Amino acid sequence: MNITEFVQLSLGRWRSQRSAHHLAFRHFEEVTSTIDIEAIESDNPQVIALCKSHDIAPETVISPFKMSWEGESDWDEEETMAGSTILVPIPNPEDLTKGKLLREQGYAETIPSVGNYYISEDGTFVLTTNYDRATAEEKIWFTTPNLRFRVSLIKTSDGKGVVTASFSSEIRSLTDSK
Amino acid sequence: MNITEFVQLSLGRWRSQRSAHHLAFRHFEEVTSTIDIEAIESDNPQVIALCKSHDIAPETVISPFKMSWEGESDWDEEETMAGSTILVPIPNPEDLTKGKLLREQGYAETIPSVGNYYISEDGTFVLTTNYDRATAEEKIWFTTPNLRFRVSLIKTSDGKGVVTASFSSEIRSLTDSK
Repeated sequence: MNITEFVQLSLGRWRSQRSAHHLAFRHFEEVTSTIDIEAIESDNPQVIALCKSHDIAPETVISPFKMSWEGESDWDEEETMAGSTILVPIPNPEDLTKGKLLREQGYAETIPSVGNYYISEDGTFVLTTNYDRATAEEKIWFTTPNLRFRVSLIKTSDGKGVVTASFSSEIRSLTDSK
Repeated sequence: MNITEFVQLSLGRWRSQRSAHHLAFRHFEEVTSTIDIEAIESDNPQVIALCKSHDIAPETVISPFKMSWEGESDWDEEETMAGSTILVPIPNPEDLTKGKLLREQGYAETIPSVGNYYISEDGTFVLTTNYDRATAEEKIWFTTPNLRFRVSLIKTSDGKGVVTASFSSEIRSLTDSK
């Protein structure tokens, strides 16, 4: 599987169940959310701006997309968490199964990020992103075209300790309503 | 990594945090438990009996082990779940990274089971077990020698639908106390 196929499979609306394990405290957090993933044009102004901020030629972009989410955590049921971000794959010219992924705004930080991805032989997308004070590692794989799983680890910046591990089950929503 | 190395890494006491997602109902279940994994001898009477029940020559056994657990679910905090089982790898003679795994008693059924395992290039142990009315798929991988993760899927017996997805974070316990 290459990045174009992976993004294509990911497009649509997903209903997500996420469990986070805060390992030091053996604490659980539960989040349910709706995630929308839409293709955007390579010449979208936000894509061009993101490329410029990383000194990357916009013509190397393949399959950029927008991800938005709206969810509820059991930590604070009153508060709805919502947001959106632009994600821009920059594959290796010779090998679309690996490359960089630019992100307008990360999960762990509020600044733009750039991660390195590869897609393993069994079709698992693996993304590693180094932030100032943490490293994030994400694995996403499809069990069927309508069901995907995601394991995310937040590690200390030396990459050795894992602070939080989370697991999401994402089911394609076949209706348009949230 | 081959099965001997994988079992070796797994030996010890683990403190586990498990989240189960019951997908149809978007229901969460949380379990904390202690898991003990101990090597046993290949000529242990339970190992020999398990081989016989599957018509497998006991001399093909490599690295059998015993797993015991004691845990609490948030579904019923009064009840402690405890149990133990014997697991017996039967690797392919030419390739220790794949083979069969005999289990005295499965998670999903109370009868003995036989699953097929392989260990992928990135060191993930993948086990598929067919039961009468369900198929179980389990992935286990180590992030460090003291931290492993496990994703378990319970599928319908045709292997297409996923009923339950669960995720465990398992941290090696460096003390002897529970």
